[in-house]
Amino acid sequence: MEGSHGETGKALRGKAKQLYATDDPEILWVEYKNTATAGDGEKKEDFTGKGRLNNLITTIIFDLLKKRGIDSHLVKRVNATGQLVRKVNMFPLEIVLRNVAAGHFCSRLGVEEGLPLKEPVLEYFLKNDDLHDPFVNDDDLVALGVCTREDLAEIAPLARKINEALIEIFAKIDVKLVDFKIEMGRASDGTLLLADEITPDSCRLWDQRDHSGKVEHLDKDLFRRGLGSIIPAYEEIEERLAELAKSEGIEVAE
Amino acid sequence: MEGSHGETGKALRGKAKQLYATDDPEILWVEYKNTATAGDGEKKEDFTGKGRLNNLITTIIFDLLKKRGIDSHLVKRVNATGQLVRKVNMFPLEIVLRNVAAGHFCSRLGVEEGLPLKEPVLEYFLKNDDLHDPFVNDDDLVALGVCTREDLAEIAPLARKINEALIEIFAKIDVKLVDFKIEMGRASDGTLLLADEITPDSCRLWDQRDHSGKVEHLDKDLFRRGLGSIIPAYEEIEERLAELAKSEGIEVAE
Ligand SMILES: Nc1ncnc2c1ncn2[C@@H]1O[C@H](COP(=O)(O)OP(=O)(O)OP(=O)(O)O)[C@@H](O)[C@H]1O
Ligand SMILES: Nc1ncnc2c1ncn2[C@@H]1O[C@H](COP(=O)(O)OP(=O)(O)OP(=O)(O)O)[C@@H](O)[C@H]1O
Ligand SMILES: [Mg+2]
Ligand SMILES: [Mg+2]
Repeated sequence: MEGSHGETGKALRGKAKQLYATDDPEILWVEYKNTATAGDGEKKEDFTGKGRLNNLITTIIFDLLKKRGIDSHLVKRVNATGQLVRKVNMFPLEIVLRNVAAGHFCSRLGVEEGLPLKEPVLEYFLKNDDLHDPFVNDDDLVALGVCTREDLAEIAPLARKINEALIEIFAKIDVKLVDFKIEMGRASDGTLLLADEITPDSCRLWDQRDHSGKVEHLDKDLFRRGLGSIIPAYEEIEERLAELAKSEGIEVAE
Repeated sequence: MEGSHGETGKALRGKAKQLYATDDPEILWVEYKNTATAGDGEKKEDFTGKGRLNNLITTIIFDLLKKRGIDSHLVKRVNATGQLVRKVNMFPLEIVLRNVAAGHFCSRLGVEEGLPLKEPVLEYFLKNDDLHDPFVNDDDLVALGVCTREDLAEIAPLARKINEALIEIFAKIDVKLVDFKIEMGRASDGTLLLADEITPDSCRLWDQRDHSGKVEHLDKDLFRRGLGSIIPAYEEIEERLAELAKSEGIEVAE
């Protein structure tokens, strides 16, 4: 199976990744694409090398999390843009954690970007393109039957634990973790697993090595705000993470 | 003080009520106005008799709740459109309880109006005209410093208890309580109190005596949807509630 994702397999096409079935019904092949999208899919552009970088980055982050006791869907990276993952039954949720005010939080609540939040803020958005991923609370999710109270009592602490681990990881590479989006699902045995990706597409990462006084974005905000190519920033994140991972004895692809 | 609200007192002008200071710094005079507004204040109309009816209705409801062990800011009704209430330090929150899907819940989440919700849904909206009263969750409120976790641990159970009591009250007069909005604040001694109003302006009330098969609105949706005068519906609610209150030994104004 390695090195090929069996083109006959059913494909699930996303904006940033493509998922393929494999011979093993429990395992999916994830192809990281070069496409970046923003603004509810209205803005779209291809960046050569993005797929390769995001595959590297998400692999390193999942490995770093694993070392910190947090499992993910990752089985292994198999080539430049491909990854094998455990197939999970996804909760149709964007699980957002915020440590510093940015993005929608600011426009929605009239808060200035950069305001440090007293406590991390956990927010759920329902993945539904027609409804433009509406913000929902726990009661909404239970009423809609999207998940149960018991699911939420597992999802929320796991999300907060991932945030704590990621804050620590990014601090080690001189990056401030402003906010990020994750997704979770249940494996066939019922285990709740971190799935999807953790990359500069799904995080806001502010460089702390920069001393110019203004925010140096190392994430997709470069694309959202038309600040030039995203590739150098993604490369920077990949290099710093690779160095950290190696220092922790984790094997990293060149 | 009775019979007059001391025109010299500082006034807090709302869309549906006007609040005046009284000689007692702990007590406010509430004047119920005839104005109805909808759609973020864009739609506006006066209905003769509305102020009088809402003053009666909210008084009866607060009295019925009091009999059920739920205190409010109400001191007493003093004349046709006036009420004395305890001044509270308001939380800038619209506290919404939903038993059946309607209104924003439907448009936001793509759900059909009338869908019964498995469990009551509690939602908070931040009272902020510039931001158009954004939907917020617990973490947002704590991060913004609007209230503490401890406040929310008091507000939420009180809101759910009020919902249970109101469901029972309205069921007794053959009305389905679809949803409603309340506000709360703290009295000078720190007590959390139900404040503001509970009227057909702030509730969705569906008549269960009507057997036409379609929903008969006994609330402000008549105005929101341009279905004619609201007055007969508000009168109907007032009469049924008055009858219930009398049957419980509560004194009701004629
Ligand atoms: N382990 C997994 N099992 C099943 N599905 C997964 C897994 N990991 C990720 N997915 C799903 O793969 C899909 C493709 O990812 P991608 O990020 O490209 O989607 P997208 O453009 O964000 O679109 P959307 O997320 O709205 O479907 C997503 O729907 C994601 O939820
Ligand atoms: N016991 C109370 N103490 C202090 N303020 C109160 C009390 N009860 C109600 N209020 C406040 O009185 C104001 C006037 O009421 P009204 O319903 O007319 O306002 P509104 O048009 O809804 O405007 P807004 O609620 O946005 O201020 C509201 O701001 C409400 O929060
Ligand atoms: Mg995605
Ligand atoms: Mg009001």
